[in-house]
Amino acid sequence: MLGIMQDQPLLISSVLAHAARHHADTEIVSRTVEGSIHRYTYADAHRRAGRLARALGALGVGFSDRVGTLAWNGYRHFELYYGISGIGAVMHTINPRLHPEQIAWIANHAEDKLLFFDLTFLPIIEAVAPHMRTCKGFVAMTDRAHMPASSKVAGLLCYEDLLERESDGFEWPTFDENTASSLCYTSGTTGNPKGALYTHRSTILHAYASALPDTLDCSARDAILPVVPMFHVNAWGLAYSCPLVGAKLVFPGPQLDGKSLHDLFETEKVTFSAGVPTVWQGLLAYVKQNNLRFSTLSRTVIGGSSCPPAMIKAFQDDYGVRVLHAWGMTEMSPLGTVCNLKTKHLGLTKDEQFGIEVTQGRAVYGVDMKIVGDDGQELPWDGKSFGNLLVRGPWVVKGYFKGEGGDPLVDGWFPTGDVATISPDGFMTITDRSKDVIKSGGEWISSIDLENIAVAHPAVLQAAVIGVAHPKWDERPLLIVVRKPGAQVTREELLGFYDGKIAKWWLPDDVVFTDAIPLGATGKMLKTKLREQFGSHRLPTA
Amino acid sequence: MLGIMQDQPLLISSVLAHAARHHADTEIVSRTVEGSIHRYTYADAHRRAGRLARALGALGVGFSDRVGTLAWNGYRHFELYYGISGIGAVMHTINPRLHPEQIAWIANHAEDKLLFFDLTFLPIIEAVAPHMRTCKGFVAMTDRAHMPASSKVAGLLCYEDLLERESDGFEWPTFDENTASSLCYTSGTTGNPKGALYTHRSTILHAYASALPDTLDCSARDAILPVVPMFHVNAWGLAYSCPLVGAKLVFPGPQLDGKSLHDLFETEKVTFSAGVPTVWQGLLAYVKQNNLRFSTLSRTVIGGSSCPPAMIKAFQDDYGVRVLHAWGMTEMSPLGTVCNLKTKHLGLTKDEQFGIEVTQGRAVYGVDMKIVGDDGQELPWDGKSFGNLLVRGPWVVKGYFKGEGGDPLVDGWFPTGDVATISPDGFMTITDRSKDVIKSGGEWISSIDLENIAVAHPAVLQAAVIGVAHPKWDERPLLIVVRKPGAQVTREELLGFYDGKIAKWWLPDDVVFTDAIPLGATGKMLKTKLREQFGSHRLPTA
Repeated sequence: MLGIMQDQPLLISSVLAHAARHHADTEIVSRTVEGSIHRYTYADAHRRAGRLARALGALGVGFSDRVGTLAWNGYRHFELYYGISGIGAVMHTINPRLHPEQIAWIANHAEDKLLFFDLTFLPIIEAVAPHMRTCKGFVAMTDRAHMPASSKVAGLLCYEDLLERESDGFEWPTFDENTASSLCYTSGTTGNPKGALYTHRSTILHAYASALPDTLDCSARDAILPVVPMFHVNAWGLAYSCPLVGAKLVFPGPQLDGKSLHDLFETEKVTFSAGVPTVWQGLLAYVKQNNLRFSTLSRTVIGGSSCPPAMIKAFQDDYGVRVLHAWGMTEMSPLGTVCNLKTKHLGLTKDEQFGIEVTQGRAVYGVDMKIVGDDGQELPWDGKSFGNLLVRGPWVVKGYFKGEGGDPLVDGWFPTGDVATISPDGFMTITDRSKDVIKSGGEWISSIDLENIAVAHPAVLQAAVIGVAHPKWDERPLLIVVRKPGAQVTREELLGFYDGKIAKWWLPDDVVFTDAIPLGATGKMLKTKLREQFGSHRLPTA
Repeated sequence: MLGIMQDQPLLISSVLAHAARHHADTEIVSRTVEGSIHRYTYADAHRRAGRLARALGALGVGFSDRVGTLAWNGYRHFELYYGISGIGAVMHTINPRLHPEQIAWIANHAEDKLLFFDLTFLPIIEAVAPHMRTCKGFVAMTDRAHMPASSKVAGLLCYEDLLERESDGFEWPTFDENTASSLCYTSGTTGNPKGALYTHRSTILHAYASALPDTLDCSARDAILPVVPMFHVNAWGLAYSCPLVGAKLVFPGPQLDGKSLHDLFETEKVTFSAGVPTVWQGLLAYVKQNNLRFSTLSRTVIGGSSCPPAMIKAFQDDYGVRVLHAWGMTEMSPLGTVCNLKTKHLGLTKDEQFGIEVTQGRAVYGVDMKIVGDDGQELPWDGKSFGNLLVRGPWVVKGYFKGEGGDPLVDGWFPTGDVATISPDGFMTITDRSKDVIKSGGEWISSIDLENIAVAHPAVLQAAVIGVAHPKWDERPLLIVVRKPGAQVTREELLGFYDGKIAKWWLPDDVVFTDAIPLGATGKMLKTKLREQFGSHRLPTA
């Protein structure tokens, strides 16, 4: 027997409509590509997203058509999120840091019908346009005054012109909540990128869950600045959860350096921010150098890659900014776990609490997780056993766009490719990527643990650990280090630094020094490249 | 085109499973009917709910069968919530304060197959059992030691015996999320009660929304005591939102007097509570009389009926407990709006903030609301226009069990029967029930506004205002007052008390004094009775 509740599909358009009605004058502030500050309100954004929806229709974009964007975090990008998904088309965010060849490949694979771009990326557009097989138009996200005088791209369209032609009062259509809403390709380190195809339902459920007090804790008393790009899994969902709760939104545009971010934090009274460790490194350095404080910033979520404990300490102890250590992935919309203490932890010492805060935290309700050994058997939540992490839930993918990569699920669970431990209280710690974990004599060694210790050394700027072939143990860890400018440190000093911090058999067998560690398009260390470069390093123990 | 996300139905069983896994040792504390304190954990509750599910099966309860409960807030009632709904049967909570005839009528209408009851209610069970046409068994929610030695009810079953027979490790079945999960009859003031039939989907969506920072703000650092009964719309959803976030649960059992509640608040370090104004009246009186404080209670949600501003002030100013003024109804699962300030209000004076805090607040995302005039035309959100309040959303009913009362919707909107204003910022204020609003010369007068002013008078214990027939104005307000014990106040003094507080034409035309105002089963004033009693009162102005 079915219940007798209203049949209201969960649709993305309703989020912005709610914000426009209940938070009509709440601001959205953007640093534009041109450098100036643009401000308007949720009511304005909703009105303009409606005009955009009409404009898309006029350009021939229909239900389920894909529309690409190559853009920074800004108000026009935000309008595209709602205008495109709102008519049942698919918002396809593309990472502009990818190689132009990859961008063309992705846009062709997605069969994007239109491509919207920030002027910054005109050179990329000019490079890829001739290779785009499905794209019928390129729209510069600017006004007539800033349109390029001439361009190699024929028939370039102007965003503001499109909106100006349309009228207000668009009525958002209603359709199945399982309709595809947006598409984000994973920057796979092997093989071609694969597209995660979100639904309206998965997006709304994720938005509810991500705003909860023990997730990102978003309310109408927050001003939220997503540093994490809108082309990285929808700015970790903040593009939806902020209007859902009526938080003020602050978009940093292209300027992600420490000074630009700190200025915006202060002038716009930002209370909460979100980003990857590499961005925070720049911010913290700038703030320290200039002896500055954060007047309103109370917390920040750090994810994307494992956050060094030293960074958590710096934010919390030096600046009074609470760090929410989080974990997720493109295939998870992206949130899986966030670290927030329980009542039982409130009486602990600061150090004991810190021991919990460095974990990636507890699963948000909606995400189930488990760890399994190589044999697929579930491992206990004892904080020690580490195994492959699997997840399931309504905002986890069950496959990729066009069936690429086949069926990834194992008995209904999605294998994350991460290796983790889980404590009896449900706090999860990523110990490694499955492909990066070092398998020494049948036991596993966490490359991340070894890296975190190395970067805590005052002379170390960056550190990576990879497994290198060993005749007796199969693999042994090799520590790869980039020293801070001017800093001196020897192999022996670094190995000695591990004393008492790890089990003896985890100690790297050797250290190599290098000038730079290669990073991928999302700022993560490219261990594949490191393995190419140092995989044949001859260990002194071999 | 559909997206490619996992097809995971939103099921109630998954909430408790999540709590058992992530908050295994978090406590559920109950004051039992016998008076002692019972404590166990989410892991225990989950294990026992599974045994209960097996026991229900053994007793012949199948998918969609209704199972009634007549019980206080306690751990066994909590287990029933999950054990019954978890197997796809329907949890039917019955208000034990109803007249036994009504209880029998409701149980027969619902076709309850079993009835679980707390021992307190054995006399009711004995009275109604002979009239129950579908009920095949009565289960006393107690252990063997406390079972009544003899009873008029044949074959009385013992809850703990049922569970003892079963084994652990029950696997919750998966089914359509639109399956009926629970049933709650509205205590309609006219006609027979009508059943709101919730779904697993509506329950989970409501649980997500109700735990948000701007709703009830529930986290794993809370200890939550629902005073609001589990037979009142699932304790306003707290029976689901607490395990969803891993909050400690404290159940007060039958003892809702000021002392019992305050003792529990203190010993169990309660941070958050929920209840109707009449309960808080008793608590505040006790705390004041004994010169006590609240050591851990930081906030309380007050709803069920409009909260007198004086009560909000007492909690906030005298005891530092923040009041979340809320509004909802059985047909809304129940939450519609909750009052939480926005950033723009944080700079206001305390008095200005108070002017917002007395409103019922903003709609939670998921609930759309609008106000319309008698002609059905939407009225502006200007904080002045008041009209009939309509709502819609995925946790709002579209009809009643067995089609009772026909189709209540108006163009897809549910008419709440309340009259309200909405401010430009989306803050809603209930000014009256549609049937209680006083229609004077074509204009509306809010009976609630007039009552709130009257109860602020130091000599007034209770006050009600009804419309009384008037030859010229159709209706005019009559103030009905219960004086505090020993207090003296005249008609003229009370009417003078309105000076400067309302528009002149709102002034009641007369005052009558009475000994008691009749209350319904949910603690609300029964204006129908008052109209019977005083409707023919001859106004001096007539």
